[in-house]
Amino acid sequence: MKYAIHASWVIPVRPSGVTLKDHTVVIEGGDIEAIVPTADWHGDAVEVDCRGHAVIPGLINAHTHAAMNLYRGLADDLPLKTWLEEHIWPAEAMFAGQDFVREGTRLAAAEMLLSGTTCFNDMYFFGDDAAAAALETGIRASIGMIIIGFPSAWATDADEYFRKGQAIHDQYRSHPMVTTTFAPHAPYTVDDASLSRVATLSAELEVPVHIHVHETAHEVEQAVHEHGERPLSRLDRLGLLTPQLIAVHMTQLSDNEIERLSETGVSIAHCPESNLKLASGFCPVARLLDAGINIALGTDSAASNNDQDMLGEMKTAALLGKGVAGDATALSAGTVLEMATINGARALGCDDRLGSIEAGKAADLVAIDLARLTTQPVFDPVSQIVYSAGRDHVRHVWVGGRQVVENGNLTTIESDDILADARTWGARIASQRG
Amino acid sequence: MKYAIHASWVIPVRPSGVTLKDHTVVIEGGDIEAIVPTADWHGDAVEVDCRGHAVIPGLINAHTHAAMNLYRGLADDLPLKTWLEEHIWPAEAMFAGQDFVREGTRLAAAEMLLSGTTCFNDMYFFGDDAAAAALETGIRASIGMIIIGFPSAWATDADEYFRKGQAIHDQYRSHPMVTTTFAPHAPYTVDDASLSRVATLSAELEVPVHIHVHETAHEVEQAVHEHGERPLSRLDRLGLLTPQLIAVHMTQLSDNEIERLSETGVSIAHCPESNLKLASGFCPVARLLDAGINIALGTDSAASNNDQDMLGEMKTAALLGKGVAGDATALSAGTVLEMATINGARALGCDDRLGSIEAGKAADLVAIDLARLTTQPVFDPVSQIVYSAGRDHVRHVWVGGRQVVENGNLTTIESDDILADARTWGARIASQRG
Repeated sequence: MKYAIHASWVIPVRPSGVTLKDHTVVIEGGDIEAIVPTADWHGDAVEVDCRGHAVIPGLINAHTHAAMNLYRGLADDLPLKTWLEEHIWPAEAMFAGQDFVREGTRLAAAEMLLSGTTCFNDMYFFGDDAAAAALETGIRASIGMIIIGFPSAWATDADEYFRKGQAIHDQYRSHPMVTTTFAPHAPYTVDDASLSRVATLSAELEVPVHIHVHETAHEVEQAVHEHGERPLSRLDRLGLLTPQLIAVHMTQLSDNEIERLSETGVSIAHCPESNLKLASGFCPVARLLDAGINIALGTDSAASNNDQDMLGEMKTAALLGKGVAGDATALSAGTVLEMATINGARALGCDDRLGSIEAGKAADLVAIDLARLTTQPVFDPVSQIVYSAGRDHVRHVWVGGRQVVENGNLTTIESDDILADARTWGARIASQRG
Repeated sequence: MKYAIHASWVIPVRPSGVTLKDHTVVIEGGDIEAIVPTADWHGDAVEVDCRGHAVIPGLINAHTHAAMNLYRGLADDLPLKTWLEEHIWPAEAMFAGQDFVREGTRLAAAEMLLSGTTCFNDMYFFGDDAAAAALETGIRASIGMIIIGFPSAWATDADEYFRKGQAIHDQYRSHPMVTTTFAPHAPYTVDDASLSRVATLSAELEVPVHIHVHETAHEVEQAVHEHGERPLSRLDRLGLLTPQLIAVHMTQLSDNEIERLSETGVSIAHCPESNLKLASGFCPVARLLDAGINIALGTDSAASNNDQDMLGEMKTAALLGKGVAGDATALSAGTVLEMATINGARALGCDDRLGSIEAGKAADLVAIDLARLTTQPVFDPVSQIVYSAGRDHVRHVWVGGRQVVENGNLTTIESDDILADARTWGARIASQRG
């Protein structure tokens, strides 16, 4: 299907800082064919009238645990340790399984698509079911091959975690919609042997590594206390600081560490709402950007956010980044839009295909309605997208040229079915936890 | 008109911490008549089916400059001083007038009602036009009698500011929908004589005082440098620290100052998104709450936010409050819901009529749809309202018993007219600023 999307504004993200007024994005066979002034366009295609809309690249959620959407609001206003050890891990031990992952991921994927996210970087158990759920909804997925130092319903020991993860990698090796990462949970839950194995395999297979690092001061202090080493030093020693690494959170960073991250080309997945909600600390984003480090943006799970809304996350990232830097010019609207698109693509090693509106790239596009009370008047469409528009402004979404959201509704899957599953899981979880 | 609103959850806010499952709110003659279990209700009324919805008190926006909605996104990513002195004040000198205020306030009021705000505390020029715009849309307004130490299109000197302000006060003295405050802009823009006069008149007329205070470190440093006195000490000396004071922002506070605020019963209007966006500093909300200080919540203007969405502001307040306190248990969802309702009412001296769902109070109510993908499953409706629901979940709104939003649409005014005005102003402002 060939589409000509006529928009009041096209924000291609690459080249950086450009807004194209009254342009048409032509897509065919899953890819972007051309971006031309609407006045110059003529041809045969399904024409989509996006006057009053801005068209941006699909948003890339660089860190989440999608299935945990079923735990949304289960245990709020608690510190990370209590939340994790007394609520989330016990709930996982009780419920995590194929159906939970498939139905939870479907709920999250639907929420993501409806709010303009076209690709998510996931870390959870039963990654094959997460991939199946993603494909069912039409979203792109980067599936984490999880490795964690305790048994779960998914695997009992390191060998099984690796084996099952690599089976997913092999299954989707040349799939257009699914990629994989190695996903060791965190330095404090994975031993040196497994981390070294990840380093080796990541280099051999050219697969990114997705890991929580320096999420809290407690994590760093405990590592120093127990092993005499900061977690980031340990990852460095084990050969993990490379451009393949996606280090999530990173609220605790010394000047030397920032320099080392910059030298080694590590990407960071910044999750401002989760960091705030769990009072984990503040990621020094403006300083990291100044050091030339690639910063992507993630929502983290709905259990610590409590949504999967990258438009909201962009606003929080921009506001918090200014507050933490003490500089209102830090993290401009244009910068956070890059974090949520091209930087995410770069972190995942997909920036040749995703993250910007350029001829030849995949047609992952979002049309955002700016002709509404909440986004008028429009002086600068990028400001309106980041600071004023919300998920309620997302009107159409295409992933790989397929229209998955039309007029604010999913085209791929019945919302009522997803809702019914979510209600059933909610009742079951509430009753079994007593 | 008598309504019986049948909701899956009623969150009355008073008593504190209560969620009533499957209850009906009965409203008649502008007031709340009763809150009863739906199973026990019978009678003659228009029945409103809010199954799957939570009904909360109307949200109270404790600080905004509504007309400035027409400057939304005009000058972003700039420091407060540049933003104010090089963009906002010049724009005001050029555009602020009766039509601007009426049409800008109408735009903001529409946005507020559609996102669940039923009362706003305003500070701007041409307050009589702001009041007229509010009445046209059906929202309650607290109109600031602005006083600022330089001439504007509204008034040329202190006497004229006072005279025109008091004319608004007299006009609306016993109006059910409009109240007034004295609104000296800030300590750095209003002299001692005017501030003393405000203190006297506020006590005589029993009218609150609405003022920006300690918004930035720069403001405090400059005052100390020029006058040898911190602004809050100056207000104290001039007799302004009383339960009538609504001190906005308050990002810079010593322990002694917090103690003094607590002793004197001052209310604070916290505007987290504006403080972040302008990098003004962090209001120490958790410490202020611990000191027993009444903290209300405001959006500030759309020029520094860039929306008028109190649901979004509640989420930001909860998240940021935890981050700043370094304590994930600080500012729970229930606490911020109180900030956005009963605390705002108390700041405005209206807590006998507004801020909670209690028999005899005004029927200012919001029905929030929680039966959607973005708020499922529901373990705790208050968590879902604060952390997951957005303005897109607001389905019905009543102000003083009148339904002003029905199924997400305004009943009082044509959205298309407001949009047309906003577009016209946008084009005019953009072209005249060059």
